[in-house]
Amino acid sequence: MSNLVVLRRRDALREKVREWKQQGFSVGLVPTMGALHEGHLSLVAKALQETDRVVATLFINPKQFNSAADLAAYPRTEDDDAAMLKAAGAHCLYVPDGDQIYPPGFATNISVSGVSEGLCGAFRPGHFDGVATIVAKLFLQSEADKAFFGEKDFQQLQVVRRMAQDLDIAVQIFGCPTVREADGLAMSSRNRRLSAKERAMAAVLPETLFAASNAIEAGESIPAVLHAARDKILAGGFKSVEYLELRDAATLTPITDELVRPARLLVAGFLGAVRLIDNVQVTPN
Amino acid sequence: MSNLVVLRRRDALREKVREWKQQGFSVGLVPTMGALHEGHLSLVAKALQETDRVVATLFINPKQFNSAADLAAYPRTEDDDAAMLKAAGAHCLYVPDGDQIYPPGFATNISVSGVSEGLCGAFRPGHFDGVATIVAKLFLQSEADKAFFGEKDFQQLQVVRRMAQDLDIAVQIFGCPTVREADGLAMSSRNRRLSAKERAMAAVLPETLFAASNAIEAGESIPAVLHAARDKILAGGFKSVEYLELRDAATLTPITDELVRPARLLVAGFLGAVRLIDNVQVTPN
Repeated sequence: MSNLVVLRRRDALREKVREWKQQGFSVGLVPTMGALHEGHLSLVAKALQETDRVVATLFINPKQFNSAADLAAYPRTEDDDAAMLKAAGAHCLYVPDGDQIYPPGFATNISVSGVSEGLCGAFRPGHFDGVATIVAKLFLQSEADKAFFGEKDFQQLQVVRRMAQDLDIAVQIFGCPTVREADGLAMSSRNRRLSAKERAMAAVLPETLFAASNAIEAGESIPAVLHAARDKILAGGFKSVEYLELRDAATLTPITDELVRPARLLVAGFLGAVRLIDNVQVTPN
Repeated sequence: MSNLVVLRRRDALREKVREWKQQGFSVGLVPTMGALHEGHLSLVAKALQETDRVVATLFINPKQFNSAADLAAYPRTEDDDAAMLKAAGAHCLYVPDGDQIYPPGFATNISVSGVSEGLCGAFRPGHFDGVATIVAKLFLQSEADKAFFGEKDFQQLQVVRRMAQDLDIAVQIFGCPTVREADGLAMSSRNRRLSAKERAMAAVLPETLFAASNAIEAGESIPAVLHAARDKILAGGFKSVEYLELRDAATLTPITDELVRPARLLVAGFLGAVRLIDNVQVTPN
């Protein structure tokens, strides 16, 4: 178990990271909004493999929420999060005070066109601007060498990759595989808001995704597979499916016809009041 | 006269700057669009005072031009610029190839609300997004410690300050006084597009600004002074005045009533086909 340093000011974080770098250590960053689960810990584990010192961040970013209700409902569990990070071997937890992220007069916005359009971007206006802006800030505040994101939020990962490349931020970005519960449900802080009954139904989402991915890989018609998959998710108890789409894995441009390059099948839907997202790889033969 | 290194690739610039930093040198950045004049050289001189190694950049950024004609008409004088920088003692000229700034698939935009609104922002849609984005990139590509901008482009200076602060870019920004011709005209690469007759008339702009500043400082009515000054500029031969406004020097919020904090009087107008801008300080008693 490591000694976890908790910092709340940007300059303290920067000083700590520069001190580590002067000692010859590489530094990894794991940005989170807290409510940690095994998915986050897998990012910490990967960061510990790839770098010498690991900083996890916890900031519930109001700019990436579309509704005040969703922001208010977001779980806040800092003490548990710190204990989990310490046990996982992280070296630092950065929990910035609000003014360290949005000082008085803050007026700057980063937007990424293309990869942020459609999918979650269509249903959560401004969400990816909020993501791109906060992540750029965390990269630049920390001066980390490498940063670790889950493929669970696949569109977010592509937005972050594009932003960091376009703005010449000297950080290497790692996308890490989604961690799943025993029944296949992708781990998410939102899962704890599911009722027991909803939780029992939720596995229809990954089951359907994996089956659809296999069917597309086997050469079945993409529109037909997507249509049937949507029906299956709704029949499985989901209230709605916001999107279920096959996209190019790198550019996120839609694929409706033929599978020639690595693709991703992405879904978002509501189970009761809880919005769940997931995605799986689809590989051409 | 120094040895001027000319670099055209981001990674070559970064390597050079990191080499300097490892040697214990601080690094100053002077971003330009070329067509250098004494105003730019004053920034280089200030940078040489404040840092050990000075990088000037030359990139004519298409994203900050509103019209293709204005972009096409912008002077391109790289050889002259390099000779002037060498004579001035700069250590490096970075002239990035286009793909070093906007690689294929580039999709990221930085916008700054507040300080970018009104004034030039009202007449040049997208201009300050282009400025904020390119300057952020140059800061992050170069990893310079300090950067130097002219007060001639006062609104730009405030946009750059806000952007760098909001995005936690570890660069210190210096605003440097406008350099003027003998008759008071602010130096600008656009001045060379004035006809001899227009050039002779141009001094009405700074003369009027300084007189108006004095009148406001002496307690005359702000609206009355601005109204008379606008008339005087038009009577002096300007085809139009886009704006003539008194603004808070830090936040650029309009001042129409009483002068209580340091302010700036800013103007833009057309003399023939050439758009000229200028600004002067207005100090409360």
